[in-house]
Amino acid sequence: MLERYGHGGDLWTAAEAFGRPKEQFLDYSSNMNPLGPPEVVKQILIESWRDIVKYPDPAVRELRQKLSQKYEIDPESILVGNGAAELIDLIIRVLKPTTTGLARPSFSEYEEAVHKVEGGLISLPLFPQHQFELQWQDVEASLTALDILFLGHPNNPTGRILSSSIVSHLLGSGRKLVLDEAFMDFVQQEKEHSLLKLASTCQDLIVIRSMTKFYSIPGIRLGFVVAHPDLIAQLRYQQVQWSVNYLAQRIGAAVLEDESFEQSTREWLQIEKPWLMAELSRLGLDVVPSDVNFLLFAFPESSGKTVKQAQQYMGHQGILIRDASLFEGLNERYCRVAIRLREDNERLIQVLSNFMRDVYPIGEEGVLNE
Amino acid sequence: MLERYGHGGDLWTAAEAFGRPKEQFLDYSSNMNPLGPPEVVKQILIESWRDIVKYPDPAVRELRQKLSQKYEIDPESILVGNGAAELIDLIIRVLKPTTTGLARPSFSEYEEAVHKVEGGLISLPLFPQHQFELQWQDVEASLTALDILFLGHPNNPTGRILSSSIVSHLLGSGRKLVLDEAFMDFVQQEKEHSLLKLASTCQDLIVIRSMTKFYSIPGIRLGFVVAHPDLIAQLRYQQVQWSVNYLAQRIGAAVLEDESFEQSTREWLQIEKPWLMAELSRLGLDVVPSDVNFLLFAFPESSGKTVKQAQQYMGHQGILIRDASLFEGLNERYCRVAIRLREDNERLIQVLSNFMRDVYPIGEEGVLNE
Repeated sequence: MLERYGHGGDLWTAAEAFGRPKEQFLDYSSNMNPLGPPEVVKQILIESWRDIVKYPDPAVRELRQKLSQKYEIDPESILVGNGAAELIDLIIRVLKPTTTGLARPSFSEYEEAVHKVEGGLISLPLFPQHQFELQWQDVEASLTALDILFLGHPNNPTGRILSSSIVSHLLGSGRKLVLDEAFMDFVQQEKEHSLLKLASTCQDLIVIRSMTKFYSIPGIRLGFVVAHPDLIAQLRYQQVQWSVNYLAQRIGAAVLEDESFEQSTREWLQIEKPWLMAELSRLGLDVVPSDVNFLLFAFPESSGKTVKQAQQYMGHQGILIRDASLFEGLNERYCRVAIRLREDNERLIQVLSNFMRDVYPIGEEGVLNE
Repeated sequence: MLERYGHGGDLWTAAEAFGRPKEQFLDYSSNMNPLGPPEVVKQILIESWRDIVKYPDPAVRELRQKLSQKYEIDPESILVGNGAAELIDLIIRVLKPTTTGLARPSFSEYEEAVHKVEGGLISLPLFPQHQFELQWQDVEASLTALDILFLGHPNNPTGRILSSSIVSHLLGSGRKLVLDEAFMDFVQQEKEHSLLKLASTCQDLIVIRSMTKFYSIPGIRLGFVVAHPDLIAQLRYQQVQWSVNYLAQRIGAAVLEDESFEQSTREWLQIEKPWLMAELSRLGLDVVPSDVNFLLFAFPESSGKTVKQAQQYMGHQGILIRDASLFEGLNERYCRVAIRLREDNERLIQVLSNFMRDVYPIGEEGVLNE
């Protein structure tokens, strides 16, 4: 299994599993913007070699200022972190919830953070018949038993945002609501849907953002959280000194100003998402509608195919896909793929098409046509 | 005060305080190797711009392998962190000591980590009359009240290693011993003094290393801890996913192979340390013997000078020094400076010499001769 460390994008494990160099894989298993990183990242890396001799700014002043301007939020409501992963962990450690409500399926880091503080979990099921949209009637009954809800908005791996009606219900529920908006910048009407600004003054709403997906800089680690200044101060106190490295701070401040990158990304996704969805459907796959830059789909039961077979087959052809059956609430038929540039997407479709035509299982790894 | 965030090397605060650009300061307040970063760092930054589009290796395989070879330690006894700061925090969170013994003065992060888990502290005093060397008789009586000892080896800001006799006593004491060897690679007989290898198999010894001081890469964040594999597994479980960024991993693996950098550093320090110590003594300052790349000294009482006056005076001249009176156990006369290259050290001595000749106080900031 490629998700040895619980996630996609692990090229080191892929290289071990499929015996080819890391560089030769087309990675559909992690959801990075294929247009990134922006050009300015290159410039900063070239210029910065003498600068990393200095400690990072412990208060992350420049980047917080830029985020404050872009999102019209007071800098005191913003804490920058060493990737969203650090912030998920930090929020759970500070809130210490007795019981946390999680949508199923959802990103595994929420659950892991809760386990680390030995908190309890309540699953809020997402159903295929509702196209994995969270329904108020599936949450309502559980609310009395919960301290906090930790939800993806949009959710990963389903790619769906929360409806405005469920958001209203949740905000009025008296429970703390933590929203992971890691993929929100890929949503067409981001400003309309994001709860970033509301979180900056609200006691019961916390919003996490990642900067690594949209700008394709996961290697450098960068995320931020927006919450009431009182909570930000508590999080800051528990955060490790100099947690956000110098390059992440500089790159973060620079990419925020690159409006043309933002524009190109929106244009690319507006064309490529419907194209890839249509192509996957044409192969007979059940594609879930998506608000973001990745797609969840299922091999139809009638095909007899499983995602594990697909991952092996495609891995040997140099394409990495995400085994979505590892997300609690999804079965062995579910697969998640990123949306990439057309040429790569055509290759994905071609190899998937070959896979769908082959007869299974053959051999332990289910591999044909090598 | 320049140490607004508890440490030296904060050029952002210095720029605000003294109204000059960050680049124009000669920083004696953080203890970086002035020969660094090694050339290979530049090469990696230039080459890596397309690589940060990938997640870091979650298991830090290459760097752990290189560390394993260099120090002859099993990789399962090594955990890499986002700077030593993350590891200090992680160790305290996992050990959850009721009462921790700290030498005074020592690095403030140990105490802060203990405060975060609401643990108690016992101070183990270091005395100027013993040249700040920890004495067994000053520890022995406190041992029954302690769970763990957290000590710098060598200690910061005093620059002294633990004597082999006190190390033996401590290892035999039945208490957990956490040693911060952040500056151990600057010690002349590093191999003889370091307890890295012993820590890899010993249940009661944990050794933290920083890679940022010796290689001058604090901006990129890199440290590691060596301990028994059982404890390493616990630390790893609590550590945030992808905590160590891609560039830190690559740079770390590359610099370890640069033996000529290591050699040059030893040669530089062997010459420069006695020179700077002699010059500071010539100005009438009381210099503490040092095993590392920084010096603690005191303005003699007869001079009437304080370190706060010195920091203001020198800051306005573009030189940053560390106000060591902020370390518990040191008074207003103590100052810490890094050892840098000869030309810079000459400038330090010249400005310090002017400061010593001037009459104080003049004006609120104690500034003369601007």
